[in-house]
Amino acid sequence: MGNTFGHLFRVTTFGESHGGGVGVVIDGCPPRLEISTEEIQVELDRRRPGQSKITTPRKEADSCEILSGVFEGKTLGTPIGILVRNKDTRSQDYDEMSVKYRPSHADATYDAKYGIRNWQGGGRSSARETIGRVAAGAIAKKILRQVANVEVIGYVKRIKDLEAAIDPNTVTLEQVESNIVRCPDAECAERMIELIEQTGRQGDSIGGVVECVARNVPKGLGDPVFDKLEAELAKGVMSLPASKGFEIGSGFAGTLLTGFEHNDEFYIDESGEIRTTTNHSGGIQGGISNGENIILRVAFKPTATIRKEQKTVTNEGEETVLAGKGRHDPCVLPRAVPMVEAMVAIVLCDRLLQHYGQCKVL
Amino acid sequence: MGNTFGHLFRVTTFGESHGGGVGVVIDGCPPRLEISTEEIQVELDRRRPGQSKITTPRKEADSCEILSGVFEGKTLGTPIGILVRNKDTRSQDYDEMSVKYRPSHADATYDAKYGIRNWQGGGRSSARETIGRVAAGAIAKKILRQVANVEVIGYVKRIKDLEAAIDPNTVTLEQVESNIVRCPDAECAERMIELIEQTGRQGDSIGGVVECVARNVPKGLGDPVFDKLEAELAKGVMSLPASKGFEIGSGFAGTLLTGFEHNDEFYIDESGEIRTTTNHSGGIQGGISNGENIILRVAFKPTATIRKEQKTVTNEGEETVLAGKGRHDPCVLPRAVPMVEAMVAIVLCDRLLQHYGQCKVL
Amino acid sequence: MGNTFGHLFRVTTFGESHGGGVGVVIDGCPPRLEISTEEIQVELDRRRPGQSKITTPRKEADSCEILSGVFEGKTLGTPIGILVRNKDTRSQDYDEMSVKYRPSHADATYDAKYGIRNWQGGGRSSARETIGRVAAGAIAKKILRQVANVEVIGYVKRIKDLEAAIDPNTVTLEQVESNIVRCPDAECAERMIELIEQTGRQGDSIGGVVECVARNVPKGLGDPVFDKLEAELAKGVMSLPASKGFEIGSGFAGTLLTGFEHNDEFYIDESGEIRTTTNHSGGIQGGISNGENIILRVAFKPTATIRKEQKTVTNEGEETVLAGKGRHDPCVLPRAVPMVEAMVAIVLCDRLLQHYGQCKVL
Amino acid sequence: MGNTFGHLFRVTTFGESHGGGVGVVIDGCPPRLEISTEEIQVELDRRRPGQSKITTPRKEADSCEILSGVFEGKTLGTPIGILVRNKDTRSQDYDEMSVKYRPSHADATYDAKYGIRNWQGGGRSSARETIGRVAAGAIAKKILRQVANVEVIGYVKRIKDLEAAIDPNTVTLEQVESNIVRCPDAECAERMIELIEQTGRQGDSIGGVVECVARNVPKGLGDPVFDKLEAELAKGVMSLPASKGFEIGSGFAGTLLTGFEHNDEFYIDESGEIRTTTNHSGGIQGGISNGENIILRVAFKPTATIRKEQKTVTNEGEETVLAGKGRHDPCVLPRAVPMVEAMVAIVLCDRLLQHYGQCKVL
Repeated sequence: MGNTFGHLFRVTTFGESHGGGVGVVIDGCPPRLEISTEEIQVELDRRRPGQSKITTPRKEADSCEILSGVFEGKTLGTPIGILVRNKDTRSQDYDEMSVKYRPSHADATYDAKYGIRNWQGGGRSSARETIGRVAAGAIAKKILRQVANVEVIGYVKRIKDLEAAIDPNTVTLEQVESNIVRCPDAECAERMIELIEQTGRQGDSIGGVVECVARNVPKGLGDPVFDKLEAELAKGVMSLPASKGFEIGSGFAGTLLTGFEHNDEFYIDESGEIRTTTNHSGGIQGGISNGENIILRVAFKPTATIRKEQKTVTNEGEETVLAGKGRHDPCVLPRAVPMVEAMVAIVLCDRLLQHYGQCKVL
Repeated sequence: MGNTFGHLFRVTTFGESHGGGVGVVIDGCPPRLEISTEEIQVELDRRRPGQSKITTPRKEADSCEILSGVFEGKTLGTPIGILVRNKDTRSQDYDEMSVKYRPSHADATYDAKYGIRNWQGGGRSSARETIGRVAAGAIAKKILRQVANVEVIGYVKRIKDLEAAIDPNTVTLEQVESNIVRCPDAECAERMIELIEQTGRQGDSIGGVVECVARNVPKGLGDPVFDKLEAELAKGVMSLPASKGFEIGSGFAGTLLTGFEHNDEFYIDESGEIRTTTNHSGGIQGGISNGENIILRVAFKPTATIRKEQKTVTNEGEETVLAGKGRHDPCVLPRAVPMVEAMVAIVLCDRLLQHYGQCKVL
Repeated sequence: MGNTFGHLFRVTTFGESHGGGVGVVIDGCPPRLEISTEEIQVELDRRRPGQSKITTPRKEADSCEILSGVFEGKTLGTPIGILVRNKDTRSQDYDEMSVKYRPSHADATYDAKYGIRNWQGGGRSSARETIGRVAAGAIAKKILRQVANVEVIGYVKRIKDLEAAIDPNTVTLEQVESNIVRCPDAECAERMIELIEQTGRQGDSIGGVVECVARNVPKGLGDPVFDKLEAELAKGVMSLPASKGFEIGSGFAGTLLTGFEHNDEFYIDESGEIRTTTNHSGGIQGGISNGENIILRVAFKPTATIRKEQKTVTNEGEETVLAGKGRHDPCVLPRAVPMVEAMVAIVLCDRLLQHYGQCKVL
Repeated sequence: MGNTFGHLFRVTTFGESHGGGVGVVIDGCPPRLEISTEEIQVELDRRRPGQSKITTPRKEADSCEILSGVFEGKTLGTPIGILVRNKDTRSQDYDEMSVKYRPSHADATYDAKYGIRNWQGGGRSSARETIGRVAAGAIAKKILRQVANVEVIGYVKRIKDLEAAIDPNTVTLEQVESNIVRCPDAECAERMIELIEQTGRQGDSIGGVVECVARNVPKGLGDPVFDKLEAELAKGVMSLPASKGFEIGSGFAGTLLTGFEHNDEFYIDESGEIRTTTNHSGGIQGGISNGENIILRVAFKPTATIRKEQKTVTNEGEETVLAGKGRHDPCVLPRAVPMVEAMVAIVLCDRLLQHYGQCKVL
């Protein structure tokens, strides 16, 4: 269970890192949206391993095929099936993994839950699973852009203790993509790249924080109680591999302010629109978007697979040691950026459709 | 929409702060569970306003009535309906609210979304809505206790910058309930109480962090992808009013460690069980519980309603000022503790049932 | 589980025939719909026992109270909670039922499933459960009427072998309500009433067929695959107590025609609209409404509770006999009419909202 | 929307008749079930066109590939993706269809709903969509067999007015498969085959009734209210293409009996089990299985595509005529048998898992 996300714009992913392939079925997509394989591939390429010197050198083309739901370049309103084939990459790298549990991976918990596990790779916990999310996110982004010119832009805000200075209200995709670490603060980006490379050379890994902004989100998206917009966003990004924390607007830092300092005062802007002077709320009040920029942050832990040797156990219950082999990212953050964007776009698109379904009928 | 939570243990709440009452329907509860109104009332009393000098002096009895689903003290397996009547409390306090939007409240976004709003109170964004959650949580806790002796214990970890020293592995409910701020660090609790009282006297408010631990959670709960256990927990607590952030295990601080430092090494304990020496994972790996204590934190912003005057606008689009009247909590944290526990218990119970439904069949 | 129906217009019922009461929570209702307790009560009165000499003489007022979701006569967009209190009617009638299983009732299967049962009445299998459905149906009907002037009209088509001649394309609610059996064929209605009374005097019961038409349904409602409009309608009405069969359009009789006879040829009407000359499809093609009248039929078995003695067993596994006591309908059909209408209206309303949520966005 | 079926055993299909392929994602399957491509292929071959002289001569291999969720011959508990490629069969047959609406097909309603349509074939309304259902059904059947030796057997009960005499309590799969019309009454089967062939030669088509029995179903499956077992079954089979009616147990004929005749009296069998002497209930009472054989019937209309010319209109709103070209089944019934079985098995499997998830926990 748990492989479907969304209520009206409904995304179902399938596929292990090893086996026939990974893919996604997107149900509920509005009809007549122009979409091409190329547009989806652009986002997949941002997620792809082997894209730069600071990501895993594993080369995977990750070429997607649209199996259904699109006809003559337009969505049909029927489910869009997308498939990315796995290469037959089973190597010796994983032989040890059939018996030894990798620390802070899902090997042991899969075995505990299912009593079986595809030990040839990470199975469903592999980052490859996110291919389907990113493909769905590409479509969600296009819908959002078309309906309300919504922009969803993520970037690396912090790597370990290197924190960038970025204005979420003005940052552009071009700035994000201008360097391989996806940090629009050019000076900080260089230091981040250096730190990642150095950490990789040491056989270790590091983590950090991705920040994401959604601009031009219409007022009124989200629902008051369990499906509050921030709750759906939290679930979306906390379902990404390696995520450990979520903040909306002021987040944890907001708890250091008083109510007087934290409250976002209202004013009327030149166009007669109700606005807030500050945005500690992060664009959401009472679970519903208020028209200000939605700003959130996600903490990603350091990559679990490292070349340094660590203590572990076997599936037979014996203590042993394990050192990660193969080619892994010393830092997932640059590749996590499109994943965060995808989940944010999927949530916003789903809520947009739901809003039409309840509030645009009468 | 959005008033139902959970897949198999399914909780639907209804009711505004003003009107006939608030309540909950719990569907999918296992049959033959012994449950009484009194057991539910115990939890509701922990959530109730007016319980101490640091909560709002508003007195609400919040007496619950079980309408259905329980017969001769046992659950029937059919939906449990629980109702708490509202007192007819409509006072002059809210008259201004019919036209002025309270800063950082849901008034403006409700109007933007629905084009209508029950201005007599907070409507669905009122903390009163959580009565249904806490009632459902009381039942979820009992199921968890009965099946696996699971304990779910929340407490105030931090108020503004006053951080308590608490060991989640040993903390007891008795320690939590030993003071009115629900902080088991007695010395820190006193300072917290003082700060809350002082802030209240100034007409201002403060926030903080609730930490929650779930102990004895069986291995194997949760699902690999979108319904990862931490993702469901994040959604659950981020759907509580005033929450701004969520962390599981090491959280944001975990991003400052290297993989070598952060990974939880495995060992075999004296009973032959696979355990981890550290618990940066917070009891969840790959979205599935690993048998270690589940530890999470939730950031709550300072209460939005304050007596200090602030700038705002009217629903007619005119700028004005507003100072909160009525009786409000200067700090929601003590009352948020049972709410967090309730959502954690509901998530765990739902995942427990789902685990039986998939993995205990063959 | 299973106490929630619908995806966007989502209806959750609760309550046993004995206990605090029965009720419903309606989530996802469009905001700003004018609705009053009186409008809902009108439909509840059509469902109510004791309404005529051919229904059970049990008098139940079934007065409903709106607990939430409506403010100053208009829906808020938040969940509408409605409660109907049970009278404390526990009589000696049910004492035998605590040990003896009533034939063709749910007593034995509830015990088999849950290991517990509220033997004071029918529990969730009581027709009282349908109060919540009828209340929700009243709201659904109003939305449908307001959006597209949709009319949903049910009537008794057949009692045992007495079949009425009724034109679904022209029948009116007034005609349906013009007699106590709700059969708009006046002459046939009289014979039906006579047969029901005679059957009741014999301590026996009879069944029949309810037909229901929905007129002015917009083209495009419903979804191609699992949620085909006829599939949702089938589920809706087959979830009513005592239903044994469902037909859409030509139904079982349609299987006696050839394709050439059965196909509905298209033509262009005077207003330029695409129409069909016949309506064997019953207003639905490929799971989607085509603008013709939706026509369906539901078979209801003879009431299971009869005064004639029958063989049964006890919950201890001993064979015995049982004769129904108390006051029961010798024929459920007249009261089933508003139930069928309610389920049809709920399905159509849900699909209407879903259609806006997918197809009115771009 | 509407491309997912089931709550715990959750089936999502995708794919049009023309395009990359059709497939299915099965989420929530219990882990460690042995399953092979060959077992699934057996069921697909029963559904396949071109399998005999009375089905369409269109040859489609319909070879399935398992993309994920199965490892070394066993299910992983993760989603099972199955793909069947489409052959590139776009022929001249469909050219006319790009402008002319086929009577009693989905062409016109798809255009009305989505404003776009894959006119190269039936799109999602093509019988090809049922490939995914049949594949999922093969897995559901295996789970049911393994857990409780449940058998699900469908067969042709009636073709037009040729009704077979078959005892659902003893019929075997071998008998069903012993002739190409899948009617275990050998003598009647011959007459059916003759009628189908004759009808096909005339360029016309016929329909009929499929009956399906599920034996050894454990007591207790299904839920009291909206998800009554018969309601879920009704939805499942009424979502199949060309279905027009559904009956459980006595069905419409049951309405001709009195309650005294219709009620299923209880007795204790030699093994001490509670049984019923008759089975008008069709194995379900109060929405829950009672351990008797579940028996249902589904009406299928005559195939809409016929070679005889009929009146229709174009998508430009002009009246015209159309005669079906290409190769179509003069009667869908033989191929509908595995489809009905699949939906019944999926419903039963889903309810089985749900039963464990609620009632086997405490």
